[in-house]
Amino acid sequence: MSALAARMTRVRSAMTAHGVDALLLSLGADLPWLTGYEAMPLERLTMFVLPADGDATMVVPRLEAPRVHDDPSVFSVRAWEETEDPYRIVAGLVGRRRSLAVSDRAWAGALLRLQAELPGAHWQVASVLTGPIRAVKDEDEVACLRAASSAADRVAVQLQAGEIPLVGRTEAEVSRDISDRLRAEGHRRVNFAIVGSGPNSASPHHEPGGRVIGPGEMVVCDFGGVLAIEEDAPGYCSDITRTVVTGEPTAEMKELYDVLEDAQARAVAAATTGTACEEVDAAARLPIADAGYGAYFIHRTGHGIGLEEHEDPYVVAGNRTPLRPGHAFSVEPGIYLPGRFGARLEDIVVATPSGPESLNRADHGLAVVA
Amino acid sequence: MSALAARMTRVRSAMTAHGVDALLLSLGADLPWLTGYEAMPLERLTMFVLPADGDATMVVPRLEAPRVHDDPSVFSVRAWEETEDPYRIVAGLVGRRRSLAVSDRAWAGALLRLQAELPGAHWQVASVLTGPIRAVKDEDEVACLRAASSAADRVAVQLQAGEIPLVGRTEAEVSRDISDRLRAEGHRRVNFAIVGSGPNSASPHHEPGGRVIGPGEMVVCDFGGVLAIEEDAPGYCSDITRTVVTGEPTAEMKELYDVLEDAQARAVAAATTGTACEEVDAAARLPIADAGYGAYFIHRTGHGIGLEEHEDPYVVAGNRTPLRPGHAFSVEPGIYLPGRFGARLEDIVVATPSGPESLNRADHGLAVVA
Repeated sequence: MSALAARMTRVRSAMTAHGVDALLLSLGADLPWLTGYEAMPLERLTMFVLPADGDATMVVPRLEAPRVHDDPSVFSVRAWEETEDPYRIVAGLVGRRRSLAVSDRAWAGALLRLQAELPGAHWQVASVLTGPIRAVKDEDEVACLRAASSAADRVAVQLQAGEIPLVGRTEAEVSRDISDRLRAEGHRRVNFAIVGSGPNSASPHHEPGGRVIGPGEMVVCDFGGVLAIEEDAPGYCSDITRTVVTGEPTAEMKELYDVLEDAQARAVAAATTGTACEEVDAAARLPIADAGYGAYFIHRTGHGIGLEEHEDPYVVAGNRTPLRPGHAFSVEPGIYLPGRFGARLEDIVVATPSGPESLNRADHGLAVVA
Repeated sequence: MSALAARMTRVRSAMTAHGVDALLLSLGADLPWLTGYEAMPLERLTMFVLPADGDATMVVPRLEAPRVHDDPSVFSVRAWEETEDPYRIVAGLVGRRRSLAVSDRAWAGALLRLQAELPGAHWQVASVLTGPIRAVKDEDEVACLRAASSAADRVAVQLQAGEIPLVGRTEAEVSRDISDRLRAEGHRRVNFAIVGSGPNSASPHHEPGGRVIGPGEMVVCDFGGVLAIEEDAPGYCSDITRTVVTGEPTAEMKELYDVLEDAQARAVAAATTGTACEEVDAAARLPIADAGYGAYFIHRTGHGIGLEEHEDPYVVAGNRTPLRPGHAFSVEPGIYLPGRFGARLEDIVVATPSGPESLNRADHGLAVVA
């Protein structure tokens, strides 16, 4: 059985288990994961309608229908004209079914239109069904994630070796440089290239801007994108963070970074199968708190990764999901002193029967770059 | 009054006119257009809560709070911790208000969470309020669109001059080349770079793939992205289509293209202020139908453009909105012979008191490239 057919079988089982009458997939990774087809992120509706008790239909704008390479044994195609109402078409396919699941990342505007067409329906997100299945990667998927991480590693190594000029350039220029290098290393798309320098290194999701990087500054670089092995296949994500310093670090910088590096290593070591996600989070948090920085680690320890940059499982307090072989996720503690400086260290890790495997291999130390 | 303050006043007036008690903005361009702040397209909720009768609040993940440069006279910031429920926080700010508008491009998953927190609310999309205001560009916005179109033009000229190799390369390679050139010309982000060759030129939204481009083929190239004038400011979109042929075109190709070029020019000429959008669509459709290609022009004539690649006003049958000075939109008829070949020609046009102004200036003819 093909990978897609196996996924379809598992999704149908999950629908039965959750009492979902019809699954409606649009934007987001569920659709390409299940069918190989990716919807365009535009206002014309693409929606895959999978009834629990019937055959599947791909509703697509007519001008995008030639993009769909359908196998009639899997789904049929309903192409809609510019003057038709696609929401009415979907409602017709749903019929009297009223327990519905919809793509988490479908647009709210699309959901409102569907709710108007399908009064009395009970809605939930598709990830209730697909999240736990997608979270466990098979061997081929781990190979894709490994390739993506290796490509990101190569850019990280360039950063740590001082091959990416920092001092005298703006954060935005460095961000563009890193993005170009990610593409040169095979990424089809760059999702983000955060560059936070000096006081901005204490802003975990800093938007790289016009600040010129100076000497002796911490620079947090967090970047990733989508790497595709085959040209027409969906791609898997990379995501890595390395912090460098533009000149000799102060004693305080070194001490903070040592705490961080130790915390990250402890969290990775804790990520054995059977361990709850929240315990991995706690493993990172404890040494940071012990060192007195607890109030400055202001985000969860990590997130799952795959076709989407953030997906199940989340490494956060309250998530008692035990790690299973094939779970892939980031381990990325950070310490941020507001208005002063900060640091973060992130690898992608896969849980395996023989222990956690870091897919990123770039050096973990605080690299001093000229 | 600043541009943002003027927009806020107009949005509040629209809320009163439409009886909306609270506006909830998240992903999409409404938020940066109104506040200067753009939400990250991730699972952590960012939501700007604007009550009709009260002060505004930006609800953001704590790790993104340092990104928000707030003016306390415009809104306050409510940063939420990783272990808090942001939907509950938004519901608390909404209070007893029940007529609500939400970003069209917010995630469906976010809307479902809000609906669970706010039972009995009546929901509509924010574009009911913001769409007509955003559709009319002021002088600064037209200048941004002009700069974006000029940058795309420069890549189109390279394409038409044969500076972008086609024959012997895959569509995906050419797509990446065009994307690189868009970035080199100042685009901060590439939204799409469609390259459809040979039979794929008849697939309007073709996904560039592994097909190697051959001699004597039509190649439809439709590309655009976001160009920012200032590093920290929201950027405006470009979008252009030019069709080239890799060698001497056949008589049929020439005849089809002549019909298309004429239709596009007629539609642009029809785009005078006061004319209904659907009449511009009809102006493109008529000569194509007269030439016998009516069944092969399978999409609307155009879409508005601004901070988003597709927005109001849509140039489509049924849209009776009259064009106003400052309306900016694409005019992009196409003719597609399934399985054989096709062509499309697209400019961005602004309606002005003195008539339609094409922002794209790259040659309109069918360029023959080696």
